Amino acid sequence: MVRNVSLLAALAASTIAFPAVAQQTRFDPAIGRLRDAALKDQVAWDIVEGLTTEIGPRPDGSPQQARAREWGMAKLRSLGFQNVRIETYQLDTWVRGLESAEVVSPYPQPLRLTALGNSGATPPDGLTLPIVFFPGIDDLRAAPDGSLKGKIAFVSNTMQRTMDGSSYGSQGAARRQGPNIAARKGASAIVIRSIGTDHGRGPHAGVTNFEPGVTPIPAAALSVADAANLERMVKRGKPVTLHLLLTPKRVGLRESGNVVAEVPGSDPAAGVVLIGGHLDSWDLGTGAIDDASGVGITTAAAKMLLDSGKPRRTIRVVWFGDEETGGFGGAAYAKAHAGERHAIAAESDFGADRVWRFQTNLPDSARPVVDRLTAALTPIGVIRGLGVANGGTDVEPVLATGVAGIDLNQDGLRYFDYHHTPEDTIDVIDVEQLRQNVAAWTAMLAVVANAPEEIGPMQIKK
Amino acid sequence: MVRNVSLLAALAASTIAFPAVAQQTRFDPAIGRLRDAALKDQVAWDIVEGLTTEIGPRPDGSPQQARAREWGMAKLRSLGFQNVRIETYQLDTWVRGLESAEVVSPYPQPLRLTALGNSGATPPDGLTLPIVFFPGIDDLRAAPDGSLKGKIAFVSNTMQRTMDGSSYGSQGAARRQGPNIAARKGASAIVIRSIGTDHGRGPHAGVTNFEPGVTPIPAAALSVADAANLERMVKRGKPVTLHLLLTPKRVGLRESGNVVAEVPGSDPAAGVVLIGGHLDSWDLGTGAIDDASGVGITTAAAKMLLDSGKPRRTIRVVWFGDEETGGFGGAAYAKAHAGERHAIAAESDFGADRVWRFQTNLPDSARPVVDRLTAALTPIGVIRGLGVANGGTDVEPVLATGVAGIDLNQDGLRYFDYHHTPEDTIDVIDVEQLRQNVAAWTAMLAVVANAPEEIGPMQIKK
Repeated sequence: MVRNVSLLAALAASTIAFPAVAQQTRFDPAIGRLRDAALKDQVAWDIVEGLTTEIGPRPDGSPQQARAREWGMAKLRSLGFQNVRIETYQLDTWVRGLESAEVVSPYPQPLRLTALGNSGATPPDGLTLPIVFFPGIDDLRAAPDGSLKGKIAFVSNTMQRTMDGSSYGSQGAARRQGPNIAARKGASAIVIRSIGTDHGRGPHAGVTNFEPGVTPIPAAALSVADAANLERMVKRGKPVTLHLLLTPKRVGLRESGNVVAEVPGSDPAAGVVLIGGHLDSWDLGTGAIDDASGVGITTAAAKMLLDSGKPRRTIRVVWFGDEETGGFGGAAYAKAHAGERHAIAAESDFGADRVWRFQTNLPDSARPVVDRLTAALTPIGVIRGLGVANGGTDVEPVLATGVAGIDLNQDGLRYFDYHHTPEDTIDVIDVEQLRQNVAAWTAMLAVVANAPEEIGPMQIKK
Repeated sequence: MVRNVSLLAALAASTIAFPAVAQQTRFDPAIGRLRDAALKDQVAWDIVEGLTTEIGPRPDGSPQQARAREWGMAKLRSLGFQNVRIETYQLDTWVRGLESAEVVSPYPQPLRLTALGNSGATPPDGLTLPIVFFPGIDDLRAAPDGSLKGKIAFVSNTMQRTMDGSSYGSQGAARRQGPNIAARKGASAIVIRSIGTDHGRGPHAGVTNFEPGVTPIPAAALSVADAANLERMVKRGKPVTLHLLLTPKRVGLRESGNVVAEVPGSDPAAGVVLIGGHLDSWDLGTGAIDDASGVGITTAAAKMLLDSGKPRRTIRVVWFGDEETGGFGGAAYAKAHAGERHAIAAESDFGADRVWRFQTNLPDSARPVVDRLTAALTPIGVIRGLGVANGGTDVEPVLATGVAGIDLNQDGLRYFDYHHTPEDTIDVIDVEQLRQNVAAWTAMLAVVANAPEEIGPMQIKK
C-alpha cells in the first residue's frame, strides 16, 4: 500500500510549528497525528525491499555498495529530499575468498563457517591441524604463550538473548578479541562459535581486529549448530583434527562513500539533526535488518517531516558506508563535517523490531524536550529509559565532539538469530514493527527538529 | 541421563504376557507402565546424537552411509539385539557436485540453491540464460512445447503447513515432476522454489525423476527466501538472466545395504513385526529428523520390548538404506525377504515431533487389536484416525504383498521447515516429543508383538 500523504501534510504543516518560547512543555497533538500516520508508512518497507531485491548484499568496499549508493541517490531524489549527494572517501578493503572446513578425524564430516572480517588466509590448499578447545574466551586468555603452536584454537562460548543487546557487548569478545589473542599465543588459526542466539547452520560473519605487529591468522565463525556438533566431538575425548580453507585477501584502497540527503530547515543556526543507518552489509544475507531497515526507517521518518512543512532545523539523513568493518563511513562523515553545528545525532542499526525505549544524553536544562519526547513516544509503547544515550558506530564520532544523542532502542530479542547470517533477508521483517519504528522516529524528529529551545553542545565525552 | 531399565524390565517381563485367547479386548495395565517408562527413554536421543555427531550426512551410496552401517551394527549389538547384520545390495549412485547461481541481470546478486537428486549437469563453466517464470506447476504444464528452448524454467509454487503432511503430496509436484516436464518442453534447466514451509536460506534437497528417454536437465531448488527474491525481480518486469552451475554426476553401482536386528519371538509362525526408519540422509544437514530420529525411535521402542521379556512375535528393526533417492533399501528388503511371513510393518519417517494419530489397515476381524491400540495410545495424546494406514517408502513394498500396516502419524507442522535442508540437525529436536514417539511405538509393539490373535495377510493392494 502506498499512502497518500498530501492531505495529512497540509494538516500537519499548519499545526506543527512551535511557539518560539523557551521551556515550552505542552505536547502538540499534531505530533501525535503525524506519528500515527507513520504507522501506515510504506516508504521504509519499499527501501528495504528495493535494496535487498535490486542490489542484495553490499559488502564493505564492494561494487555492490557502489551500486547501492547510486540506487540511494535516485531513491532519495524521487522522494523529494534536497542536497542529495555522495560524499566519498577511500577504504582499505578486505575481501572474502573461498571458505570451507571439514573434520578430518575422528568423525569426518563438513562444517559450515565463514571467515571473520580482517581474517588472514590459509595456504591455497588449506591447513590440516588438531584443534584445542576453549569453552570461553577467558579460557583462551589463560592458555600459556606458545601452547597453541601448530594448533587451531576453538572457542565455543554461547550467547543469550537480551532485549537491549547487552550480551553482544559482553559475549562478542570471542569474535572481536579471540583471533588476536590466539595469534599472540602462536595459534595457526582460530574458529569460534558464532556470536548468535540461534541454533542454525548459518554462520555469523563479523569483523575482528589484530593489534599492530600481530600477523592476522585465519579466523572464522562456525555456525552455532556446527560449533555445538564440534563440541560434542571434542567431549568424546579423542583428538579432533580439522581441515580449514580460508582465502580472503586485502585489495588495497577502494573508493567508497556516504549518501547524504536533507530536509532543509528554516533556521540554519539551530544546528543539523543528523539521522541515518548504514548502507553496507555483510555478504551472506541481503542486509535487510542490518541495515537496510535502519536506512529505511530514518528516511521514511524524515520523509514524513518533509511532507509536513519546513522544520526549524535541517534534518540530514545519511546512508553511511562501510560500518561493518570499522565504522569508516561514520568516521568520514565526522571528518568531513567537523565544525558544523549539529543539534542531535541518532542512528537506527539494531534491526527492524519495535522501539521499546528511548534514552538521551541531554542535560537537565533540556528537560522540556525530553518531556515532550516522552509524551510523543509513550503511546506507541516506547518507555523513557534511565540510562544515557551512546549512539552507535556511525554517529559516535559526531557524539564524541559533544553533540547530543538520542537512542531509540529496538527490541533485540531475536536480532542475534539473524545478525550477519545468510538469514538476514526481508523475510524476517515484521512490517508492523517496522512501521512502529518509523512512527517513533517521526515523533522524535517532530519534537527535536522543531524544538524552540537551543540544543547546544554537550560535555564532550572523555 | 541414561536410564537403568533392569528393574523395569523384570517387572514388565512378569506381567506383559497375554492370555492366548482370541478376541481378547482387555487392556493390560503393564502395557501402560511400559509405555510410560518409555517417556524417559534415552536410547533414541543417543542414536540421533551418535549418528549426527560421529557420522554426519549420510547420502545415498556414500562412504558415509557405509560408515553409518558399521556404526549401527556396533550400536545394535551393544544394545543386546540379536541377528544383527547388514543385508547388502547394489545402488546406481548419483553424486552432488559444485552448485552455485547468480542473477546476472538486471539485479546481480548470488542465489542459494541445491541440485535435485538425479539432476543433470551444466557445462563445467555453467549456463547463462534467461528465466521463464511459472507461478505453479500447472502453469509449467500449460507452456507450449518447445517454448522453453534456451531458457531456464523457474517454478515458484508455495507450500503451506499441514499437520498430516498432505501438502507435501499435493505441492511437491514441482520437484518430483517439474524437471521432467521442463525437459520435455525443451528447457535447458529448471530451478524451483524449495518444497518447504520455512522462509529461510537453506535450500530443500530432494529427488526428482526423468522418464525413460528424457535426458536429465540441470534441476535445482532455490531456498524459499531466494525464490521469493527472484520472484520479486521477475515482477519488476525486466528480463531476468541467471548464471547456473551444477556439476552432479552418476558414478555407477556402489554397494549399499540395510542394517537388520531382531528381538527374537517365542512363536516364529506368528509372523515378524517389521519396524524401522532409514539410515541414509540428504547431505546438506546431518539427517537428524530425516531420519536418524526414525531409526532411534523404532530401535528404542524395540529395546523396551527386548528388556521386557521375549515377545510372542519376532520384532525386526531395519535401518533402511537409500530411501531418499528412491526407496532402494525398502525394495531390497522386500525382495530379500519375499515369502517370509510378516504380521505387521510400520516405519517412522516424519521427523521427531509427537505422534498425534494412528491408523491401521487391519480388517474388522482384528477389532480387538485396534481397540487395545486405542487404549494404549490415547493417554499420550494419540487419537485413532478414520483413515487407512499406507506405510511409507520403506515398508510400502512389504505392505504391497498384503502385510498389515500401522501408521503412527507425527505432527508435521514444522517438519517442512527443516526437511532436506542444512537445518536438519539435532538442534531442532525436542527431546520430550522424541520420547513421546518412543512411548507410542513401545505401546504399539507391546500390543501387536504380543497379540494372541492371528494377524494374517491383508487384501493385497491393487
